Amino acid sequence: MTEQPLAGVTVLDFGQVYNGPYCGFLLAQAGARVIKVESLIGETLRARGTTSPSSYAFALLNSGKECITINIRSEDGQALVKRLAREVDVVFENFAPGTMAKYGIGAQALRAENPALIYASSTGYGSTGPHRDYLGMDITLQAMTGVMSITGEEGGPPLKSVAAFADFIAGTHLYGAIVTALLGRERTGEGATVDVSMQDCVFPTLATALGSYYAAGGVQPRRGGNRHPGRALAPYNVYEAADGHVAIICIREGHWRKLCAAMDREDLAEDARFARMSDRCANMDELDALVNDWARGLAKAEIFALAQKHGVICAPVQNLHDVVHDEHMLARGSLALRPHDGLGEIAQCHTPIRFRDMDPPPIEDVRWLGEDTERVLGELAGLSAEEIGRLRDAEAI
Amino acid sequence: MTEQPLAGVTVLDFGQVYNGPYCGFLLAQAGARVIKVESLIGETLRARGTTSPSSYAFALLNSGKECITINIRSEDGQALVKRLAREVDVVFENFAPGTMAKYGIGAQALRAENPALIYASSTGYGSTGPHRDYLGMDITLQAMTGVMSITGEEGGPPLKSVAAFADFIAGTHLYGAIVTALLGRERTGEGATVDVSMQDCVFPTLATALGSYYAAGGVQPRRGGNRHPGRALAPYNVYEAADGHVAIICIREGHWRKLCAAMDREDLAEDARFARMSDRCANMDELDALVNDWARGLAKAEIFALAQKHGVICAPVQNLHDVVHDEHMLARGSLALRPHDGLGEIAQCHTPIRFRDMDPPPIEDVRWLGEDTERVLGELAGLSAEEIGRLRDAEAI
Repeated sequence: MTEQPLAGVTVLDFGQVYNGPYCGFLLAQAGARVIKVESLIGETLRARGTTSPSSYAFALLNSGKECITINIRSEDGQALVKRLAREVDVVFENFAPGTMAKYGIGAQALRAENPALIYASSTGYGSTGPHRDYLGMDITLQAMTGVMSITGEEGGPPLKSVAAFADFIAGTHLYGAIVTALLGRERTGEGATVDVSMQDCVFPTLATALGSYYAAGGVQPRRGGNRHPGRALAPYNVYEAADGHVAIICIREGHWRKLCAAMDREDLAEDARFARMSDRCANMDELDALVNDWARGLAKAEIFALAQKHGVICAPVQNLHDVVHDEHMLARGSLALRPHDGLGEIAQCHTPIRFRDMDPPPIEDVRWLGEDTERVLGELAGLSAEEIGRLRDAEAI
Repeated sequence: MTEQPLAGVTVLDFGQVYNGPYCGFLLAQAGARVIKVESLIGETLRARGTTSPSSYAFALLNSGKECITINIRSEDGQALVKRLAREVDVVFENFAPGTMAKYGIGAQALRAENPALIYASSTGYGSTGPHRDYLGMDITLQAMTGVMSITGEEGGPPLKSVAAFADFIAGTHLYGAIVTALLGRERTGEGATVDVSMQDCVFPTLATALGSYYAAGGVQPRRGGNRHPGRALAPYNVYEAADGHVAIICIREGHWRKLCAAMDREDLAEDARFARMSDRCANMDELDALVNDWARGLAKAEIFALAQKHGVICAPVQNLHDVVHDEHMLARGSLALRPHDGLGEIAQCHTPIRFRDMDPPPIEDVRWLGEDTERVLGELAGLSAEEIGRLRDAEAI
């Protein structure tokens, strides 16, 4: 690669919170020009931080974006969005369903301005179907998609993952959909309307659990802590180390024999109680107790090193301090430690979409609310200083 | 759109389990020709099902792919991969780190055959950095990335989500990266080497938890069941309904007032204990008890209907039976109910990357191991029946 893959692509990013803004972050890190459009009071995540211009999450997701304000509730603001839609390649948003259409600037209206435009939206449930107008956020999507029903301690209540993965997996699909539409447009010249539902994006992540459900003849697997949902793989759990926990998974016979070697217990590989996967699953309590007994005598790092040496799939349960100082991610440029006004030094990520022959642009401080309004409107919409002044007076920008 | 956006793109899919195969599924559903390459004994997930040709997960992720076998441990097989690399646009894999290079068919070798080729790989930790050779699967990545450290009951051990989201979010990024490289290639004619690390892909999903960590001055938030990790939003929890559970989240003052209206408890909106978000967080136990008392008297569906009516963000905790019969996903074509040999009727998803003016190809039965070997090698590599016979005898295909 001799230039960033999305160089020359211009995007209006109406994203808010995680889903949309992450999509815009991926676009910006791939070389697109991303213009973040906020209301006159700014995006939700700007306000959560105690110091300006950003909370941690806002800083994480909005590097490299030009920041402008447009009041889409005002007619002047709506006319301005239409004007800008003629100049850009992509408009995307993750508002509550129907928000943009309510203000006359939905997919249909903007694609009428610019037939080559790609208009993309992501909502909880997508833009068609009986639940299309339902509100959704990460935690409610983890509920609706069945993820919570299978997650949690045995005998305990349903549980969410604290990772906001429903939001982020949707934002990643949104990115993929936009780039797919851009590629299709190269051949046909046509724009597209992209419709990404968070619910759709989460469904495939149930693959293991649904496999267990169908294999059992349509019976919901019991919640089981860190065990395999169908109790069909063992060892497969989180084990107690002397200084924390480690996760270990053995999916093939060879992995089990390697774990026996790592534990210096080759005798167990010959033990009839654990001979085949089905035996190990039938004697799962006993087996997990044996692995726990071994693990408790060692530090996480010792177990991890032994596991890697013997080809066992294992990792320490890192806490957040470990994660933001992860030497591997820092070494390969996945993370950068940067100063933040108010929070001190914070870890920010580059895009996970990495190319061996082209580094992504460096992470930058996020811009202030409306910092780029005048310049961008001058450049893209050809507005004069007088026109901009009038729009400001009318509270349209 | 008048044709599928990736029509004309040809891909060799060396994916296994979830991460790679999901990427191939997204490519196939966007119109690419996807040729799944398996070893002579077939991919891991073929073997897990008790009936052929597939387990549930294999059926889920391999619709629309042509299936061929190549023994990449044999020299003839390696020569064949090189031959095919000259005819395709993309080769991707998610083997253990370095597998393809070990057999002389890594990125460097294949891009030497075809400079326009996009070679993409996804591994646990990426292809650079000190941990690049470490093995990883979904559960160990949920450990390493810190996700487990923040997930679980208050006072309980670290917990995984049973959703295999580390695998699937990586497969989604892998798809996005490949399409990005294809788009870049339109301008430059150059190929690319894509490097997607599961660890990188999971990091951003910690946004809320890391925000809480930094806001507290670098202190790990306590695990707290379904509460906000920083205890900074309330109501925000999973509540007990008469027939299960519901998730409710109030992120703005207006959401709280709407919830009071939905509960027919407008008096609470005026209650000093719950006046502002900080008050509600300070009195979280009392507040959650009040919401629970209300919810226990109603069915999940009643609560959900009331919430939607009043603009409260809420969802029932659906179990897997609900999920595979979700009327909304069925109505909008996100799910299809299909017969499966051995498992009966199963729910399979279409791609979440949806366009309003072009439906994805229908879901098909997966092909048998090696079903398309002869035809594909004839078409793409120009092999005669004699050559194919010789390769079969040599156990290269």
